[in-house]
Amino acid sequence: MRGKFITFEGCEGSGKSTQIRLLSEKLTALGVDFIVTREPGGSDVAEQIRKIILDGGNDKMCDECEALLYAAARIQHLKEIVEPALAAGKLVVCDRYVDSSLAYQGAARGLGEKYVEEINSAALKDYPPDLTVFLNISPDKAFERKHGADLNDRMEKQGLEFHMKVYGGYLALLDKYPRICAVECGGTKWETSEKVFALLKDKGII
Amino acid sequence: MRGKFITFEGCEGSGKSTQIRLLSEKLTALGVDFIVTREPGGSDVAEQIRKIILDGGNDKMCDECEALLYAAARIQHLKEIVEPALAAGKLVVCDRYVDSSLAYQGAARGLGEKYVEEINSAALKDYPPDLTVFLNISPDKAFERKHGADLNDRMEKQGLEFHMKVYGGYLALLDKYPRICAVECGGTKWETSEKVFALLKDKGII
Repeated sequence: MRGKFITFEGCEGSGKSTQIRLLSEKLTALGVDFIVTREPGGSDVAEQIRKIILDGGNDKMCDECEALLYAAARIQHLKEIVEPALAAGKLVVCDRYVDSSLAYQGAARGLGEKYVEEINSAALKDYPPDLTVFLNISPDKAFERKHGADLNDRMEKQGLEFHMKVYGGYLALLDKYPRICAVECGGTKWETSEKVFALLKDKGII
Repeated sequence: MRGKFITFEGCEGSGKSTQIRLLSEKLTALGVDFIVTREPGGSDVAEQIRKIILDGGNDKMCDECEALLYAAARIQHLKEIVEPALAAGKLVVCDRYVDSSLAYQGAARGLGEKYVEEINSAALKDYPPDLTVFLNISPDKAFERKHGADLNDRMEKQGLEFHMKVYGGYLALLDKYPRICAVECGGTKWETSEKVFALLKDKGII
């Protein structure tokens, strides 16, 4: 049987890595056959693309170029890493996916949802997530929690106003797509992890 | 007055670089204010993208990824290099453009015209060429003329069958878009250059 595909979304500092690590521990204890990946993790071509996107020196990059590079890295990662795992019946847990592009490039950069959907049509058509976990915390609180942004990262150094737009984009997606479920994460990481786990059970993922 | 935007298209070895050089000499002699560029020429971000596309080692790259990378490099080149030149009233002569993606990724790779047009919608909407010169020579004759393909170039080493599909893609585009004009280039490079020059005059470009 083909595996399930779940994605984690949220603003910078929302705790995606931490939550995915805690979930992994639970899945391992349960004996679930799964992989954890992130765009573009593990694909050599896609990592080369990621390097260009995140290079703090590439400040002349136009918004459409950025969105197209994310889409390019995404489809390569899907074909090289996600597809073989799903075909082998594994649960795939992915750190960020198309919703990141819709929130960051579509909403915050102002490119619009239609454009971002168009350039990601190959991903959306063949790889719709079975569930998307949205870690709901506003960027001001998230940066406070992680003691400020990483200024060597081209995305993090955009400033709070930009990240509030990203957050607004996510909230709009949450209203629109039933596959996206919000998990409030104002409590401890352990409390949030329990909520994530309960959600996955509730949705029949595990 | 805004400058004109003309593009050169054709299969590998069709003589685009040579013809653009010969045209440049004529334009310089005439005192025309112009620039010659190629995708992604002169844009640092776009050159980094080009390197990934053409790297012979990246043989796991999927077709959609390749098409999206071309689209990313293209829009960056347009915004950074082409737009300022057109705004300054210059004639812009560009070596390859969207039609290359339609022929190579759309037709030869089989991604289809609609997909390639979608991912290039930002370029097509804002930067339709005023004239596209198609240097019409079939790939078998072109490779013969240049004594074989460059095997360090990921595109050139695809084999003749692939390049014949590209050629077929170009011929279909030629039928469809009046802005694309074929120049037969079976003669000497000087003869072809005369034809190109006459075409530009005929179309009111110079």
